[in-house]
Amino acid sequence: MKEVEVDGLLVGHLPNLRYLFGFSGSQALALIIDREALLLVDSRYIDQAQKEVTNCQPVLSTPSLVHQLRELFTKHCRRRRVAVEAERIPYELVLRMESWGTDTNLVPTYGLIEELRSIKDDSEIDILREGFQLARSSLQTFLAEFRPGISENEAAAKLEYECRKAGSSGSAFDTIIASGSRSALPHGIASQKRIQADEPVVIDFGIRHQGYCTDMTRVLHRDLPEVIKIYSIVEEAQKAALDQIRPGVSSTEIDGAAREVITRHGYGPCFGHSTGHGLGLEVHEKPAISSRLPCTIEAGMVFTVEPGIYLPGQFGVRIEDVVVVTPNGYTLLSQ
Amino acid sequence: MKEVEVDGLLVGHLPNLRYLFGFSGSQALALIIDREALLLVDSRYIDQAQKEVTNCQPVLSTPSLVHQLRELFTKHCRRRRVAVEAERIPYELVLRMESWGTDTNLVPTYGLIEELRSIKDDSEIDILREGFQLARSSLQTFLAEFRPGISENEAAAKLEYECRKAGSSGSAFDTIIASGSRSALPHGIASQKRIQADEPVVIDFGIRHQGYCTDMTRVLHRDLPEVIKIYSIVEEAQKAALDQIRPGVSSTEIDGAAREVITRHGYGPCFGHSTGHGLGLEVHEKPAISSRLPCTIEAGMVFTVEPGIYLPGQFGVRIEDVVVVTPNGYTLLSQ
Repeated sequence: MKEVEVDGLLVGHLPNLRYLFGFSGSQALALIIDREALLLVDSRYIDQAQKEVTNCQPVLSTPSLVHQLRELFTKHCRRRRVAVEAERIPYELVLRMESWGTDTNLVPTYGLIEELRSIKDDSEIDILREGFQLARSSLQTFLAEFRPGISENEAAAKLEYECRKAGSSGSAFDTIIASGSRSALPHGIASQKRIQADEPVVIDFGIRHQGYCTDMTRVLHRDLPEVIKIYSIVEEAQKAALDQIRPGVSSTEIDGAAREVITRHGYGPCFGHSTGHGLGLEVHEKPAISSRLPCTIEAGMVFTVEPGIYLPGQFGVRIEDVVVVTPNGYTLLSQ
Repeated sequence: MKEVEVDGLLVGHLPNLRYLFGFSGSQALALIIDREALLLVDSRYIDQAQKEVTNCQPVLSTPSLVHQLRELFTKHCRRRRVAVEAERIPYELVLRMESWGTDTNLVPTYGLIEELRSIKDDSEIDILREGFQLARSSLQTFLAEFRPGISENEAAAKLEYECRKAGSSGSAFDTIIASGSRSALPHGIASQKRIQADEPVVIDFGIRHQGYCTDMTRVLHRDLPEVIKIYSIVEEAQKAALDQIRPGVSSTEIDGAAREVITRHGYGPCFGHSTGHGLGLEVHEKPAISSRLPCTIEAGMVFTVEPGIYLPGQFGVRIEDVVVVTPNGYTLLSQ
């Protein structure tokens, strides 16, 4: 707040509220002003907020959060500078705040808290490590019983059940189980298609554990020569990307290393997405590991490394692992 | 668009894109201008969009959707009136569009498409009916095997598995399974707490079926006198609310009917939420059935009726069913 020279900060993005205050409900607004943080919640969440939050004062807001916010603006924010999360706040709320006649200067800010969130501390890394252990052992339980013949959808149901039973609090995103030619869809969520024995299966799934997301992709196949060939290129690309990871390197170099391998083998156009993304309280967060948005990698960052090759109408292969950056390189969270 | 006197309309809210064009991916922007609808998608979704959308032209947008949008603005939107979804569009995108020098007049609109979505047509009602049948039969399968002693979390895992196995494409929201004193939390999502035989259990769950959400709440209890007493009051309140439902009535009358019963029995302050909410492509949509936002009920509307009484530290009861409004009254979708 000092850096962006504001007196106040309005936060509504839920992962940011969870990060700052530990609030895990589905709706709230925080107004930080004069070194005090007020968390506006409705009757559904007041008990929960009083139990779980730290560093802020929960305020039961009736008849609505916005009504309460207006009162606070009138009382504390006249002619003052209040930062808003420009990428998160709906235009409507800005128009409304501008109509309150408090002459508050609303200062658009970009990824202020997301930037803080991109560097994980030890307790966050512990939670993520636990989450990945839980995801991995659930996948193993699933695979031990997996047989071709069931639908992608039922396989997803089974995998999600194993995760949930093992203690996850739910899926971090729609489970992708894409078999045969459907594996060539980078986001082919599970369908009613039955999985055949002689086709590759892409499994991309994530769980939530204490609010934090996991994300990993594995490919099942029965030694089909054409799949093995593509798989080994993707593996080589992933290794090349991993080899770049250390503090100080640019994210574009990591992406470039994977892309170079795939391009060299002649499959450049078949790798249409970026190499990775940060993850934590959200399944997509900073840093992006792409060719377009360079950022400097720092210790404590957690991100996916997931090159892929997609051959439309035939099949696709993606291998996705997650690293935490250490002072000297990286550690794998998924194994 | 004619009504709000605009030349164009920018749509980014995913349920609205699904409603208008059938797009089911996780990111896109539509620009409707000069009677043409362009759907901007990235490489992840271009194949899918080409297969599934109607009434619009998919456009592969590189390097980004916003970059493509800027080109379209420059080409088609100079000094013209373009509506934006004020409640959905992030402030950042508005600031960006205003910086493009196209002198486009961005017109904030409120719930334009959401309003259309609040009246379901027959094909939507068929999907919803199928979804509720699927949810109900999954709940029955779950209940047939349900035994106290397991954790809320494992029970949620099992219920979600049955739904998924039966063909649902996932949960519509975090499953609430709240037992004993946790049942007094209106949004007590499943925890590691073990369910005991002598305590009430609130089960509130929803599935997604062809994009549409279900939502229903049931309470399990073993004839505990104090629970039966509260349950019968909530049941009476729900019946009173249902009895009001027909085209032309105000949503506040429906809410008021439930609230009156609960208040008359002395539990008014223990019913802190509104009586219901619309559902469809989103689990919360128009109309709201509350004391604050009156709207006129019309045939084709689909909404929950879910009064509840919450006794902090003791237990809670909520009964939630979903109706579709017919020309003469209503039909239950949940049974």
